Amino acid sequence: MRAVLMQSGRLWVEDVVDPLPQRGEVLVKSLACGICGSDLHALKHTDDFIRTSRETGGAFKLTSNSPVVLGHEFCAEILEHGPGSSKVLKVGTRVCSVPALPGPNGTIPIGYSDRAPGGFAEYMRLSERLLIPVPEGLPVHFAALTEPMAVGHHAVQKASLRGGEVPLVLGCGPVGLAVIAALKLEGVGPVLAADFSKKRRELAEAVGADVVIDPASVSPFERWSELATKDKNSLGIALSERSRSSSKPAVFFECVGVPGVIEQLMLGAPREARIVVVGVCLKTDQFRPLIGINKELNLQFVLGYSVGEFERTLRHIADGVLDVSPLITGDVPLEGVADAFHRLSNPEGDAKILVEPWKR
Amino acid sequence: MRAVLMQSGRLWVEDVVDPLPQRGEVLVKSLACGICGSDLHALKHTDDFIRTSRETGGAFKLTSNSPVVLGHEFCAEILEHGPGSSKVLKVGTRVCSVPALPGPNGTIPIGYSDRAPGGFAEYMRLSERLLIPVPEGLPVHFAALTEPMAVGHHAVQKASLRGGEVPLVLGCGPVGLAVIAALKLEGVGPVLAADFSKKRRELAEAVGADVVIDPASVSPFERWSELATKDKNSLGIALSERSRSSSKPAVFFECVGVPGVIEQLMLGAPREARIVVVGVCLKTDQFRPLIGINKELNLQFVLGYSVGEFERTLRHIADGVLDVSPLITGDVPLEGVADAFHRLSNPEGDAKILVEPWKR
Repeated sequence: MRAVLMQSGRLWVEDVVDPLPQRGEVLVKSLACGICGSDLHALKHTDDFIRTSRETGGAFKLTSNSPVVLGHEFCAEILEHGPGSSKVLKVGTRVCSVPALPGPNGTIPIGYSDRAPGGFAEYMRLSERLLIPVPEGLPVHFAALTEPMAVGHHAVQKASLRGGEVPLVLGCGPVGLAVIAALKLEGVGPVLAADFSKKRRELAEAVGADVVIDPASVSPFERWSELATKDKNSLGIALSERSRSSSKPAVFFECVGVPGVIEQLMLGAPREARIVVVGVCLKTDQFRPLIGINKELNLQFVLGYSVGEFERTLRHIADGVLDVSPLITGDVPLEGVADAFHRLSNPEGDAKILVEPWKR
Repeated sequence: MRAVLMQSGRLWVEDVVDPLPQRGEVLVKSLACGICGSDLHALKHTDDFIRTSRETGGAFKLTSNSPVVLGHEFCAEILEHGPGSSKVLKVGTRVCSVPALPGPNGTIPIGYSDRAPGGFAEYMRLSERLLIPVPEGLPVHFAALTEPMAVGHHAVQKASLRGGEVPLVLGCGPVGLAVIAALKLEGVGPVLAADFSKKRRELAEAVGADVVIDPASVSPFERWSELATKDKNSLGIALSERSRSSSKPAVFFECVGVPGVIEQLMLGAPREARIVVVGVCLKTDQFRPLIGINKELNLQFVLGYSVGEFERTLRHIADGVLDVSPLITGDVPLEGVADAFHRLSNPEGDAKILVEPWKR
């Protein structure tokens, strides 16, 4: 099959051996597959990614120095059932799945291992029991957005909202946008969103942010203070440390994923704020613990989603309560993947680019 | 009055002006006052402490480059009532108090400000409404331990225990010992405690640790894994990543307070562990966020205690359910404070040294 291979900072198209579905697996055609910020990380910081994956032994890992086929945000079509499969979903059914391939030697992350090619190729192997049929009539592009949107849904679940919080989302790339959309779906707000990019602030508004902030001209934290204490102080002026303590609970989402942002949030946060770290920073970061201590901050690191959260997200998209259309800014064939990775490094350009392996 | 002054890394005894109780305040004699790890920090890293205090604007702060009288773990005796006081507690009553002095311009931290001398002096000013009488018959030394023990009580409250947790306490200085004692009082366990110092491991056992670990010979995290999965695996062997996921919930307490320990705990922690940061690290620290992300860790920074937690701790000490006697390893007059600070830098030597300003 034709596939995009990635190794040590390079991306190229090559003909590789077709995947062979194993026991309980199906062979699928990859119809559309989003490019994720983590894919950009994996390309740029391959060695870092592999080393940290080894040391932490977590779910989010790149395990191999060999060429891998990236792509874990896919919508696919069943082509063939492997041995021992139940065939509940017929050939031709469009499906999504969490990007994991359970096997006799543990679960392999699809799109980050040389043993489980991802969606930037014509074919993939998926586990039959993890398949979720795509509801009738839902465009393939929208279904492919299930995975990144599920990340936002999960992050909001892990934030343990008790009601009354005023959320601030720092960074409005795809992860931040998914968090904003999930917060709106939960009905909390006003939802504040900050990004240096004009394009991304527009996208944040499109997915439901109530207040968008350009950190180059206004401090997101000052703005948060004003809005979180609005009931008690209608002057709209910057509030002192003292009056902050009577503000609504703060829950800040780190959706940038570069060194220094966690400490920025810690410095800007009010007492007892919860900071949910959703952005994936692969570099070593710095912070002064005393900032967290003085304010009794809580840092919740999050990753991925459960199968239930993933299914719920697909249903939300299909039902139209979660509108993913603003996020999709382009689609490319396999030959366009390297260029799309390049385009995605410019925040004024794209949000989500979908790879269509069968597009010519 | 005679007082120990601290400025920019120096400690000396000097005669200073007696404090004058203001409206709603009382003048007290400092009977005994413990030396805290934070006092050692303040002496060694004065500039760091002041700078970070300014930037974070929190409760735990050193505000002045002028000489200050340290000492915030005190038991005192009422000498004189200031204007406008209710005199509910009579002259001669022994009292404890949270080390805070509310005033018209905000609350001043006692023992960390040149406007509110601490307990390493003959006299202090305290707020009348914050006074808690020491129960009859309770030795002054024990009452003075209320403050550090309240820190442990508060840290355990902030850990939001849901039952079934196996706690691991890293660092068995006074903060770690207070946490261990508070965990035992909550009835959770087994409580694991790790410290490189033999003396401190002995103290940990004395305050109730069920398992003590010398990290130089055994990994506290391997030991934790063995014990937290004991019900399901009686082999007592090192467990794989996989079997860890079926272990009891992990709650790890960082009670060391030096750079690098938070990341060590993150690396050693199982999935979804909660890490409670009680140790006060004044230096900039480093960590790799991906470790937290991969395991969805939660970091809860804590500081101090509430007035209610402080009162409860004094009652626990008075009732004998919280035995503080193992912690007290010495007492010194004002002239001995500088030397006591020096002694406390050796973990094989002392745990808690009390300053007795009236001792000759």
